[in-house]
Amino acid sequence: MTGPMADEEDSVLSANAAFYAAFARRDLDAMDALWTRSGPVCCIHPGWGGLHDRDAVLASWASIFAGDEEPAIRCVDPHVRVDGDAATVICEEVLGEARLVATNVFVRDGERWQLWHHHAGPIARRVPRRRERGPLLN
Amino acid sequence: MTGPMADEEDSVLSANAAFYAAFARRDLDAMDALWTRSGPVCCIHPGWGGLHDRDAVLASWASIFAGDEEPAIRCVDPHVRVDGDAATVICEEVLGEARLVATNVFVRDGERWQLWHHHAGPIARRVPRRRERGPLLN
Repeated sequence: MTGPMADEEDSVLSANAAFYAAFARRDLDAMDALWTRSGPVCCIHPGWGGLHDRDAVLASWASIFAGDEEPAIRCVDPHVRVDGDAATVICEEVLGEARLVATNVFVRDGERWQLWHHHAGPIARRVPRRRERGPLLN
Repeated sequence: MTGPMADEEDSVLSANAAFYAAFARRDLDAMDALWTRSGPVCCIHPGWGGLHDRDAVLASWASIFAGDEEPAIRCVDPHVRVDGDAATVICEEVLGEARLVATNVFVRDGERWQLWHHHAGPIARRVPRRRERGPLLN
């Protein structure tokens, strides 16, 4: 794809990449700057329920960054969809031997795409590449 | 909240409720009708990677609906955010003794809000009600 929509998608993917760069660097100031201040936010870490309060979201990142050394996180295979002033990236997260899947939802704040929602969870079972089959619930 | 934004949020919450009604009834036709045909879709079932093909998404629901009897699913505590032609609902799913958390992203298709992305995963640890504390990664 080329043209304005491709540019939009590139901008969203750049914001998504900035999120994973802040995550990998354990950079709390950068993380803070990435999250919108316009309206609600939500963050769902693996195995957790939703944190719906901005201060609680940032405190959760501080806690993660202060924890034991984790292997650097990498984002792979991002899929993006832009709908006006909102955009979603679905991607996989590689964390050492673990593979997770994440949904990141961004809103347009002026010139910038800002994160308002992050939802990550572990992948227990790979989707077969050649033939996608129905999952088992749980 | 009252006014047009509250009406928008109510419309999105109705679409979200229709999704869980179709899920609880194991109604594949209703499920098919809920998913957008405008652009990409994605579905992430608990423990799975993303299904990015509409036929694969519907096949996954057919497989779930054909499975052993599951307790009826209920959606609780929905949070909604509308940004123009996109809207997200974050809610918890009650499935017997299990509690899951879901992100459902909708797009406006004409007069209707249609689902384009569903991401659900189990909650292993409850967020403390009185004081939200940082999660452990994994």
